[in-house]
Amino acid sequence: MIIVMNGKTDDADVEKVIHKLYEMGHKVHISRGERRIILGVIGDVENLASVPFYAFNGVEEIIRIVKPYKLASREFKDFDTIIKVKDVIIGGKEVIVMAGPCVIENEKQIFETARYVKASGAKILRGGAFKPRTSPYSFQGLGEEGLKLLAQAGEETGLAVVTEVMSVNQIELVGKYTDIFQVGARNMQNFVLLKELGKTKKPILLKRGLSATIEELLLSAEYILSQGNYEVILCERGIRTFENYTRNTLDLSAVPVLKRLSHLPIIVDPSHATGRWRLVSPMAKAAIAVGADGLLIEVHPDPRSSLSDGAQTLRLDTFTQLMKELSPIAQAVGRELGTSAENDLERMKN
Amino acid sequence: MIIVMNGKTDDADVEKVIHKLYEMGHKVHISRGERRIILGVIGDVENLASVPFYAFNGVEEIIRIVKPYKLASREFKDFDTIIKVKDVIIGGKEVIVMAGPCVIENEKQIFETARYVKASGAKILRGGAFKPRTSPYSFQGLGEEGLKLLAQAGEETGLAVVTEVMSVNQIELVGKYTDIFQVGARNMQNFVLLKELGKTKKPILLKRGLSATIEELLLSAEYILSQGNYEVILCERGIRTFENYTRNTLDLSAVPVLKRLSHLPIIVDPSHATGRWRLVSPMAKAAIAVGADGLLIEVHPDPRSSLSDGAQTLRLDTFTQLMKELSPIAQAVGRELGTSAENDLERMKN
Amino acid sequence: MIIVMNGKTDDADVEKVIHKLYEMGHKVHISRGERRIILGVIGDVENLASVPFYAFNGVEEIIRIVKPYKLASREFKDFDTIIKVKDVIIGGKEVIVMAGPCVIENEKQIFETARYVKASGAKILRGGAFKPRTSPYSFQGLGEEGLKLLAQAGEETGLAVVTEVMSVNQIELVGKYTDIFQVGARNMQNFVLLKELGKTKKPILLKRGLSATIEELLLSAEYILSQGNYEVILCERGIRTFENYTRNTLDLSAVPVLKRLSHLPIIVDPSHATGRWRLVSPMAKAAIAVGADGLLIEVHPDPRSSLSDGAQTLRLDTFTQLMKELSPIAQAVGRELGTSAENDLERMKN
Amino acid sequence: MIIVMNGKTDDADVEKVIHKLYEMGHKVHISRGERRIILGVIGDVENLASVPFYAFNGVEEIIRIVKPYKLASREFKDFDTIIKVKDVIIGGKEVIVMAGPCVIENEKQIFETARYVKASGAKILRGGAFKPRTSPYSFQGLGEEGLKLLAQAGEETGLAVVTEVMSVNQIELVGKYTDIFQVGARNMQNFVLLKELGKTKKPILLKRGLSATIEELLLSAEYILSQGNYEVILCERGIRTFENYTRNTLDLSAVPVLKRLSHLPIIVDPSHATGRWRLVSPMAKAAIAVGADGLLIEVHPDPRSSLSDGAQTLRLDTFTQLMKELSPIAQAVGRELGTSAENDLERMKN
Repeated sequence: MIIVMNGKTDDADVEKVIHKLYEMGHKVHISRGERRIILGVIGDVENLASVPFYAFNGVEEIIRIVKPYKLASREFKDFDTIIKVKDVIIGGKEVIVMAGPCVIENEKQIFETARYVKASGAKILRGGAFKPRTSPYSFQGLGEEGLKLLAQAGEETGLAVVTEVMSVNQIELVGKYTDIFQVGARNMQNFVLLKELGKTKKPILLKRGLSATIEELLLSAEYILSQGNYEVILCERGIRTFENYTRNTLDLSAVPVLKRLSHLPIIVDPSHATGRWRLVSPMAKAAIAVGADGLLIEVHPDPRSSLSDGAQTLRLDTFTQLMKELSPIAQAVGRELGTSAENDLERMKN
Repeated sequence: MIIVMNGKTDDADVEKVIHKLYEMGHKVHISRGERRIILGVIGDVENLASVPFYAFNGVEEIIRIVKPYKLASREFKDFDTIIKVKDVIIGGKEVIVMAGPCVIENEKQIFETARYVKASGAKILRGGAFKPRTSPYSFQGLGEEGLKLLAQAGEETGLAVVTEVMSVNQIELVGKYTDIFQVGARNMQNFVLLKELGKTKKPILLKRGLSATIEELLLSAEYILSQGNYEVILCERGIRTFENYTRNTLDLSAVPVLKRLSHLPIIVDPSHATGRWRLVSPMAKAAIAVGADGLLIEVHPDPRSSLSDGAQTLRLDTFTQLMKELSPIAQAVGRELGTSAENDLERMKN
Repeated sequence: MIIVMNGKTDDADVEKVIHKLYEMGHKVHISRGERRIILGVIGDVENLASVPFYAFNGVEEIIRIVKPYKLASREFKDFDTIIKVKDVIIGGKEVIVMAGPCVIENEKQIFETARYVKASGAKILRGGAFKPRTSPYSFQGLGEEGLKLLAQAGEETGLAVVTEVMSVNQIELVGKYTDIFQVGARNMQNFVLLKELGKTKKPILLKRGLSATIEELLLSAEYILSQGNYEVILCERGIRTFENYTRNTLDLSAVPVLKRLSHLPIIVDPSHATGRWRLVSPMAKAAIAVGADGLLIEVHPDPRSSLSDGAQTLRLDTFTQLMKELSPIAQAVGRELGTSAENDLERMKN
Repeated sequence: MIIVMNGKTDDADVEKVIHKLYEMGHKVHISRGERRIILGVIGDVENLASVPFYAFNGVEEIIRIVKPYKLASREFKDFDTIIKVKDVIIGGKEVIVMAGPCVIENEKQIFETARYVKASGAKILRGGAFKPRTSPYSFQGLGEEGLKLLAQAGEETGLAVVTEVMSVNQIELVGKYTDIFQVGARNMQNFVLLKELGKTKKPILLKRGLSATIEELLLSAEYILSQGNYEVILCERGIRTFENYTRNTLDLSAVPVLKRLSHLPIIVDPSHATGRWRLVSPMAKAAIAVGADGLLIEVHPDPRSSLSDGAQTLRLDTFTQLMKELSPIAQAVGRELGTSAENDLERMKN
């Protein structure tokens, strides 16, 4: 940690800061310049995190040098985390596609989608039963009925399933049906929820908040890891900027940055990021090219009748087409995608 | 609602959209231009909210004209909502100051602060017992012990109290001690929490999320109102922008905008918005001048030893000085602030 | 300057960085921690500004501690800069209001506005002759004809005038008519223009760019100051954020921040910031309360017929009303505003 | 254009707006709802652009439906614009890479870079002679001396060249040496410069401003096109957001959006967008995958000694490696990249 003080600060005031540092058990390096006095503290400064140095006279800036997260950092663990869900490997050579409707509507919809995305090469089925909707008047999901349908569709097709949990009081119920818990962007800093999920034994798909920095995403992952659950999948899904042609701005540079800072797998959600189905395919391709470990894509048999987010949802045939186009890009960056599935799709047609 | 379609769209495709609108019970006005075809639907279009028109061929833009919130809107109720907590009136002529430490640390700290801010003219005591901290390694609050101290300090001084509730499973406990529930910025879209708070009988102080639009803030208020609790106090506390000299960018224009769109009272938190105590006083003055109904200010007997947010916390004497400076500004805009308190402060000194 | 290197960096790589620093004439303080190695350079590090330390192995972060601007900083000059234009003092005790139409349309419009704003207490007349318009199809201003009208209106009323210069090839022409050169937000980093204006002898009103940080604004001021022109008036006029109810988000905290970092006067433009005339009055009040040295306000005899920005323009009577309301706020913060003008306005009515 | 008025507006006030529309030559469709009155104007509403409808009583919102740019729109021209510079085709099947140093430093540097990037498959040489630097104390470029070196290096290698022009008074000089004029992000709304460049006969590479929307970028292109120069190459180079790990946030979704809205070619600059050389390669790959027509990449024989932007600059060998990795991605999306160059590189090594 570096504490920058004004060069004209009284010696007594400088002394107060130094004294505080000694009191907290730290050795201080002092560099005096004409305009600035710099105090450097090396080593484990965790216990200084909540000392309000800005409240001391003369202090102009506090610079934290060691990252505030640990378990999520590549320094803590320098090989990639691999997460196994049923027989799917997330974070390995294969790029994993998770697909399905925004919200589970009925048996026909989720089963038809499940069979189709499975045949096209998706490995995980997504679908919402509890939906965080901006307006209280929008459809909020089928609740447990939806969870049951999702689990059944997963079982029939052999797909693992992922669905959102919005609150601590839903964890037990959702956990009965899902293979992976999803934490939505709006809940990325719902710290009570993160801590409780850290006590479960299932992987957590953690979406980046709309205005969360990369560091904050890793700190939220740290909340889960610190409770003993090491299986966190990070998800970039667009941040909020002034540009409003797209729903959000997909920050694809977050993928290589997170790969460098952390050992956790990172997937990309081009559907929520863009909010427009025409942009899903190009952004999905870019996500693979930039090094994502997986994709989360909204697919629906009939987006026009979808009860949520239809505008950004792919039709089944568009999804199949996309999967075909993604495969060579995955290969171009040394990965694999849905290859084993091609035969299935052929069989399904015959 | 206006649906804009490309001028070259096939008649059959235009017909599909019109058919959908009829099916949902709406009359459509059609205007055909060379480059655009415009379908206008007048009246209550609530049931169209989740129809994904973007998924229809030819649809280029959907424009919603009637605001998606109702109970929170000035159209629904054109006189200002007044909220009474103990003997404090929020949303009336008096500008209400809520002050206290970021986090409750011990008896001495909260009682000393309570007596002092009361004497300086504050009407409500704030203090955190459950703290949403970005890092899992930061101090997370005293929990129930803190709630008790807060309630006792409130009782002794006659101040009403406000404290944060972070999760549905804390509502009952926090409700035993607090007069006002605070929902933090990170929980502004924790819809499960909002709904449950809508079933309580206590006022809710709802902070704007870091990347929430004004419309989204009102939709979150609508979640609470729609459950029957009409006592919501909105709070502007800074949004996230590219500027990083300040912790956030305080969007003071939100105050007159919210006054125009809604009947709910609106207060401003200059402490979290700026993150620097030197900026708290000027921004507090600006907040009064722009028409805020109240302020939420962090005050601590010794910010240097504060366990949280010390950098943005005022000392007791700085707070008293600020209260004196705010009063003439309140008068300049036709309001009152802490006038009755001056005598108390004098008595306290003697 | 602080250079942070990874703790595992080879000694040889650390040595290369140190060598580079010695080569550039600097003494280095080295602190070795387990996870990080920190190199501190104290003193004048200007010659290091363009050394790409990130390109050296092991370098993780470069932290510049001394601000990159000098002449604009309060450290360089610790008393406030006062700018005198005709008999108007900018940066003194009086809050200076600059008012007038967005664009000069004809003689009647500019003379009527000039007389009226003068009578209401404004001290400087604004009006555009060359207009930077987002669309090439929008009205671009009257050019020299407009400049002449502006100068004549200024002369008749005794008001100083300010108008925008968009390009180096306009400086001479605009300089013949104006008392103050205005640099628009879109030209804040038109460095060629800034340098040439730095060679003139007239004050420069420099608007903050839509996505410019406070530091970048001061660096742009530095371009002007470094050429010998010390009379720069900074102007906060809103930054671009995700909120789109308002045209921009007025960052009022920039006022006290700039007051602390710089000695230059700072004014606020609530018209462009909000884009809505109803918000101009409350934000103007807030600007005075927060400590601005002046305001820049759009006023037009008939905003409905205005050729530019009519939506954010005040009518003459609304402007007069605002001036009356601003005066007590100025007094509440120890300033004065337009007091001498009240008599004029009375006379004008009789 | 749609004008939304409050449902409670007086008939006389509604009439005033309708009258204004008739006066301007437009037919109006009126839809009256309980809460809103909607006036629709179909057809060419260009002459309404500067009518300030917000200044009329009762007007709540103005919605422009037809895009404000024309010549740049795909509706105006529905086949892709192809730009030929020397023997390079921009906007065709081949993805064009433009590479070179941020700033031209000396003969050795620019010639060595030119030969190398040519051999690696780049088709255009970039290099700055006039540099827009945030600080007046940073190196500002060699001026004409730099232009000469650039032109010579281009001639020797057969590469076309591109360099920045910062001001109208530099157009003639820069035009003597360059094949393509570059307009930097900070000058995207320097409308005087855009208009003058629109009168030249050379292609313009127009960079998106740091806070410019996609629509504003197209309007700036429109400034050039409207003067008769139809050869504009759009360039996405990152926008400014709250995330500060990267210098800017590269908005790759702008590529497919621009492809849909406009016929102009679009390239991506991953160097300035990220500010970190390690991120250049992954983002370059993503740019190709998303459909960019070209890349603009900073390359330097020795980034550590670079006088500008060394942190984001690739070494020659890293660039060659990247070019090899890009080729299969280009193929995967049906494009070509630098294939003919491979032989050259082999020859160069021998």
